[in-house]
Amino acid sequence: MNRANSVGLVSPQKIPFESPLLLQSGQTLPRFDLMIETYGTLNEAKSNAVLICHALSGNHHVAGYHSEQDKAPGWWDNMVGPGKPIDTNRFFVVGLNNLGGCHGSTGPLSKNPETGEEYGADFPVVTVKDWVKSQAMLADYLGIVQWAAVVGGSLGGMQALQWTIDFPDRVRHALVIASATRLSAQNIAFNDVARQAIITDSNFHNGHYRRHNTIPRRGLRIARMMGHITYLAEKGMGKKFGRSMRSDGYQYGYDVEFEIESYLRYQGDKFAERFDGNTYLRMTKALDYFAPADEYGNDLSAALSHVKAKFFVASFSTDWRFAPERSRALVKHLVRAGKSVQYIEVESYHGHDAFLMTDEPYVRAMRAYINNVYKELQA
Amino acid sequence: MNRANSVGLVSPQKIPFESPLLLQSGQTLPRFDLMIETYGTLNEAKSNAVLICHALSGNHHVAGYHSEQDKAPGWWDNMVGPGKPIDTNRFFVVGLNNLGGCHGSTGPLSKNPETGEEYGADFPVVTVKDWVKSQAMLADYLGIVQWAAVVGGSLGGMQALQWTIDFPDRVRHALVIASATRLSAQNIAFNDVARQAIITDSNFHNGHYRRHNTIPRRGLRIARMMGHITYLAEKGMGKKFGRSMRSDGYQYGYDVEFEIESYLRYQGDKFAERFDGNTYLRMTKALDYFAPADEYGNDLSAALSHVKAKFFVASFSTDWRFAPERSRALVKHLVRAGKSVQYIEVESYHGHDAFLMTDEPYVRAMRAYINNVYKELQA
Repeated sequence: MNRANSVGLVSPQKIPFESPLLLQSGQTLPRFDLMIETYGTLNEAKSNAVLICHALSGNHHVAGYHSEQDKAPGWWDNMVGPGKPIDTNRFFVVGLNNLGGCHGSTGPLSKNPETGEEYGADFPVVTVKDWVKSQAMLADYLGIVQWAAVVGGSLGGMQALQWTIDFPDRVRHALVIASATRLSAQNIAFNDVARQAIITDSNFHNGHYRRHNTIPRRGLRIARMMGHITYLAEKGMGKKFGRSMRSDGYQYGYDVEFEIESYLRYQGDKFAERFDGNTYLRMTKALDYFAPADEYGNDLSAALSHVKAKFFVASFSTDWRFAPERSRALVKHLVRAGKSVQYIEVESYHGHDAFLMTDEPYVRAMRAYINNVYKELQA
Repeated sequence: MNRANSVGLVSPQKIPFESPLLLQSGQTLPRFDLMIETYGTLNEAKSNAVLICHALSGNHHVAGYHSEQDKAPGWWDNMVGPGKPIDTNRFFVVGLNNLGGCHGSTGPLSKNPETGEEYGADFPVVTVKDWVKSQAMLADYLGIVQWAAVVGGSLGGMQALQWTIDFPDRVRHALVIASATRLSAQNIAFNDVARQAIITDSNFHNGHYRRHNTIPRRGLRIARMMGHITYLAEKGMGKKFGRSMRSDGYQYGYDVEFEIESYLRYQGDKFAERFDGNTYLRMTKALDYFAPADEYGNDLSAALSHVKAKFFVASFSTDWRFAPERSRALVKHLVRAGKSVQYIEVESYHGHDAFLMTDEPYVRAMRAYINNVYKELQA
């Protein structure tokens, strides 16, 4: 644990919701839990709350450490903490694990109260709209009528955008980072290959793999390896790994030879042990289904017309998963709808992953924008 | 079968080579066969021969039909035939299946003469240099001292380039299309994920799957689905598939919903039945190892200094597997080495696959260049 500029030791809390939740699919969750973490203090006016929405493989552990022995902090510790851009001396910051997740919120690993067995494959498909609905119930629970800001990168940014459409009065600012207003055919294609890798793993057992005391390890590993390629920029990968080899000359076999192979296989192995296959399927499906304009005749400007939030939109030059033109499309529609929007396109070698990194213009822009959110609160 | 502008019915031939072939890996093939097809007539001077090198999943069946019932012709029938850019009325065109392939040339599906059993996993790793060496033996067999042209797209272009370096006196023209002088970290990464999908398939059995009467169908399917994404352009995919759905509204499940899913799964299924897993591993490894500058102190200009062939290089605007800048790098080094090179960068929506398509400026440039090759022969 490294205490410098950190929120330090933190403890997650599990918040129970005992009323049924009707999902977009038509299915109902009889009850659910949301696993959350909070940092900083909610002010008396309850006006300084910031919601952090996570991306595909994220969770509620946004900042700080769970024990003195922890080597790595939460996934956005570089952005959230005392004196950091999302300053926990000023804001009450809430992170949560989304429904369908595998880190404590109700999901495929939870017990189905109707059967007493783990949900597994029976856990319903959840959508970004469902998540926002459950997050609104969390806001109610915390007594937060309006978020000072809802913030997220990638799939997290989609939640921030959906918030402004579904609950226009409950969001003052939306920070939509490295995101898109819907997936492209290529995005959906990569997701489907990942899902097929998991589903066709001989240990998948129609999603009830845990009843067979196994996990679809090989499929998850392939999904994650492929995913990682799409999170990084070709140039960044070239700079970091190039064609450097771990072996001395060609081995003429299929063990690790190039550094990039070693990196990807390691990432894949680690992920397969820590992430649930059924959750992975659901997270990717939530991405595929996200299309907020659909309810408005495929007219994004119409979808945004009654939005009240102000927007901060950021994209990264080498992000080919959600390229800058996807963010510019959002900005164009916001401008067309007459909304307030600040946009930055950051030069970066980090590809899609840049939203988790600390390219200086990006951090500076975030800090400046969130400073203004704070000033607005004081006014 | 469609006879119009086609070479019509063709028959492959298996050419036996009974002397041992020392491979780059240090291993030796005691003997080997090459499966070939030829179109057109070798002239008396034996100066009008054109070699077509195939890419990852190609083979010797370049043009024409094997039977009256065949619906699809050879893989480059749009480029090779009477009156087509590679005009079989003028040239003697040779296609072959590379060593390690699964379409008749000696490879993992062949019998190992030393054991009497199928090679399977025991078939050695082969390289682009090995292929070129075996192709030179084929040229000897056919009595061809010098090819009028060696032509290939993608991995095929790498063979054309290697020919000019390893046998400078035996190639008059090299046509290097949608190719690269070596793989990037991202290229290697995609190949390794594909290999890992095959190797970790529970039916792989260390590559001896056929002894277990099975094939690594799931791994091959995933490899091909992912491969297809990298062959297509994001824009082209968007134009062709977009977000269109086969189902009426969301199904909230994991069966095919989007058209792009249907397309990829179909391609994957088909490929898994027709292509050998061990061959796939070897083809991708040949790609990873290709680095002709390596023998020349990583100096491509030095590698090209003693080349005598003239070059035609083509790239495609939306090819992100081997982007135009990779072809421009080759052109730059050719110019630096004082060689003759003609370069075209084609605007296309077809991504890497464009080398198999008929974008008009591409076909026109090929036709014009090869016309000049023919005129040179007449002079």
